[in-house]
Amino acid sequence: MTKYASEPDTDFERIFNPEKIAVIGASSKGTGFGSGMFFALQDIGYQGEIFLVNPKGGTLAGHKIYESIAQIPETFDLAVIAVTAAAVPRALEACRKKGAAAAEILSSGFKELGTAEGLALEEQIREIAAQGIRVIGPNCFGIYCPQSGLTMLPGADLSRTTGPVAVCSQSGGMAVDFANTGKSMGLGFSKVVSFGNGADLRETELLAFFGQDPQTRVINMYIEGVADGEAFFDTLKNVARRKPVIVLKGGLSSAGSRAVLSHTASMGGSRAIWRAILKQANALQVSDMGEMVRASLAFARLPARSYKNLCVLGGGGALGVSAADAAEKYHMQIPPFDSGLRERIEKLLPRPGSSGGNPVDVANPYVAPEVLEQVLCLAAKDARIDLQVLITLFHHYKNTAAMAGKPVREVTPFAELARRVENTVQKTGKPVVVILNNPKRGTDHLDVVEMMEQARREFADRGIPAFDDLAEALEAIAHVNAYYGGKTHESANGCPNR
Amino acid sequence: MTKYASEPDTDFERIFNPEKIAVIGASSKGTGFGSGMFFALQDIGYQGEIFLVNPKGGTLAGHKIYESIAQIPETFDLAVIAVTAAAVPRALEACRKKGAAAAEILSSGFKELGTAEGLALEEQIREIAAQGIRVIGPNCFGIYCPQSGLTMLPGADLSRTTGPVAVCSQSGGMAVDFANTGKSMGLGFSKVVSFGNGADLRETELLAFFGQDPQTRVINMYIEGVADGEAFFDTLKNVARRKPVIVLKGGLSSAGSRAVLSHTASMGGSRAIWRAILKQANALQVSDMGEMVRASLAFARLPARSYKNLCVLGGGGALGVSAADAAEKYHMQIPPFDSGLRERIEKLLPRPGSSGGNPVDVANPYVAPEVLEQVLCLAAKDARIDLQVLITLFHHYKNTAAMAGKPVREVTPFAELARRVENTVQKTGKPVVVILNNPKRGTDHLDVVEMMEQARREFADRGIPAFDDLAEALEAIAHVNAYYGGKTHESANGCPNR
Repeated sequence: MTKYASEPDTDFERIFNPEKIAVIGASSKGTGFGSGMFFALQDIGYQGEIFLVNPKGGTLAGHKIYESIAQIPETFDLAVIAVTAAAVPRALEACRKKGAAAAEILSSGFKELGTAEGLALEEQIREIAAQGIRVIGPNCFGIYCPQSGLTMLPGADLSRTTGPVAVCSQSGGMAVDFANTGKSMGLGFSKVVSFGNGADLRETELLAFFGQDPQTRVINMYIEGVADGEAFFDTLKNVARRKPVIVLKGGLSSAGSRAVLSHTASMGGSRAIWRAILKQANALQVSDMGEMVRASLAFARLPARSYKNLCVLGGGGALGVSAADAAEKYHMQIPPFDSGLRERIEKLLPRPGSSGGNPVDVANPYVAPEVLEQVLCLAAKDARIDLQVLITLFHHYKNTAAMAGKPVREVTPFAELARRVENTVQKTGKPVVVILNNPKRGTDHLDVVEMMEQARREFADRGIPAFDDLAEALEAIAHVNAYYGGKTHESANGCPNR
Repeated sequence: MTKYASEPDTDFERIFNPEKIAVIGASSKGTGFGSGMFFALQDIGYQGEIFLVNPKGGTLAGHKIYESIAQIPETFDLAVIAVTAAAVPRALEACRKKGAAAAEILSSGFKELGTAEGLALEEQIREIAAQGIRVIGPNCFGIYCPQSGLTMLPGADLSRTTGPVAVCSQSGGMAVDFANTGKSMGLGFSKVVSFGNGADLRETELLAFFGQDPQTRVINMYIEGVADGEAFFDTLKNVARRKPVIVLKGGLSSAGSRAVLSHTASMGGSRAIWRAILKQANALQVSDMGEMVRASLAFARLPARSYKNLCVLGGGGALGVSAADAAEKYHMQIPPFDSGLRERIEKLLPRPGSSGGNPVDVANPYVAPEVLEQVLCLAAKDARIDLQVLITLFHHYKNTAAMAGKPVREVTPFAELARRVENTVQKTGKPVVVILNNPKRGTDHLDVVEMMEQARREFADRGIPAFDDLAEALEAIAHVNAYYGGKTHESANGCPNR
């Protein structure tokens, strides 16, 4: 029990910002997880010192390989252990003796096997950890911290841009997928931890740490089972008062709960219990990783409050209908503008085919960014509106490009629109969310896909959240509303739009 | 009322496969919807004759422009009318006198405006239509028929590949987005009709036609409101006995229903009524276009039956848990294999980290296609399994490519895997669905996006349906199950896997 309460002697600074790392199990052949982690650390630009260890010695990419941990001439902050399961306890003990603050154990072959041998090895890890070294894993992908250049497997190409989003995940695949997807969406991370079997450091302590971490504003958790339900719930209630905590609980189905059993036999996977617990703690429950990343984007980019009345701008006949359906599903309104405002907006738009009501149908995809800015600024004058949603139809510029004989990225005014949306947010004080709708994704339209990703980056660089789909965006904003519209919070962390 | 019953004198052959088309409102300047349609028809490779009409005469891209419809020297099958709303009735009447079977009216400025003038103009269109010319529109994007080279606006780049999927949509944007998304997913179309305001030809008649069309096996409808609820329901019941009908009803929210009111004041948008009607008719209800396209892909590619017991193959710790959760949500099973089969599968896989149970965790993303084929063939021996789901992790080859200094498309064995999956389907008689999971989509990973789209095409060319996401794939298959697991059907159209 005490294992999962806060341990004040844990040096998280040394864990997340290690000045020296030892990689146990790097090979002079350059194969295996240990060597992979060494290359990943170099590629992502980790600036600290790295010591390599392998009983066979030799060198790897010009780096000396020590034959034992004891031979490393200095102490180090963090060990990466990637040796066979049976060799892990001895390596961990040696790292503890060298004064390492923690070890991430990438190796598998422990409790997850369900064998007596695996369980015994994991118990040995717990015992060594209790003597004074924190353990991340085993059976994990490690820690990603863009500020320090620490990275998960195989995350050599993760971003070095820091941001407010933290992730802790029992699944390594989920953690690295989240980091990659977040990078694609322009989301920056404070820390991402894949804790695997969670023999030592796991959900409750990590949650408590993220709750206090000044670099973390949004916390994501992928949980299959918790080790101590009561401690977790107390910490969750406490942390969720201060910061949004988004939880993806795997194994809520009866079959899924059987699948989880081989990992942790602790807290049951009842759907009703989890829903009640998360709701009571004012934590946000999501049903898949995509929803979790999008909710994080909304929390990271939108000022801390709820959004109930939207202005929706876009082009196309079904826009008004589907926007209204989606808004109702997520308990938001798209209030019609009064006739005066409507007429002022319609004067700016091509006629016929446009509509200045709310949703605003701009009639065709080629309305100039300057005009869209004017419309957004006018619509923001309606005092009820607290958020604007701009649906772009950039894929139609493929036709324009074909006629002009130019690349689609050159004819599509995404950079200008991003600047003008940023201006609009600054002038009106009301956030804008952009939808990068793209039905042209196939091999014939890779130029459109490329342009859309460049557009996403233009918006992201300006702090404007961009989603692929209107309903997905509203779902994400609904999580923001559920959080800020729920209980009162000790401190509403007044983050700006970026 | 009789307007919406079947009209045996309607010549759908001339409408969908016109040998001669007149474009009314093409301009020698090359601007406007009429000229756009002319260029689109040329670009998509329409082989019939095109007559252009504009009172100002002149030429467009070397084509003579007639100064009036009467001056066209021959009769024509289909007219495309793209003149101002006030000029439409006279143009339509002239086309009728020339013996055209139908006219698609792209112009807007009719009933959708809600003005007395707009309503009167639309009534005139109905009256002329009743005298012997069928009308598609007004306020629409027209008809796309890949076989004949007829295309919607602005669909110059739609596919010429024919397939079993039909779409009729009140929204032009929805119709063209569906056609584009379907193309990206390797889905072929029989006919796509954007019927806009539906002054004449609309949902019920089109549904009845698609019900009889031998080239159509799957029918999609985007409906905001129906003109005659009883006739629609009778036709729906009738057609859905023979072919799957997938319906996206827009405006089911109260706000959405108000948005629909300006289009058709006919059948109300009650969510409960629609759900009951669609269920009673054994039609499939979807909540957005993405779900509709994916359901069509499942219906088009999977043999006509229901799928309750799945084998799921992939790599990563959370796979088993999330697959089980998703399967339960969609009322499917992932039955565990017996120990004999499990051991035979595990002998083929890297150890530790893999699991030969069901789901099969192949432990790492680099398992050779040959091995995956062997595993799929073994798993198919479990008589309970009726469908296999293969989750690829191709994005991890980005790291392999970086180490090898080669483009990711060269190191990723997607073409071989597609061939081997095709072999597996042929050998086992059990269909395989592929998941092209890709969290690497941003500007740094356009090479991964490109490779994924090439992979999608490899699978599509072999009749293997590929989805982006496991839960989305199971949702699509659940529609197949709902259809074939429901009422008995007059004829189960025994389509093969391609």
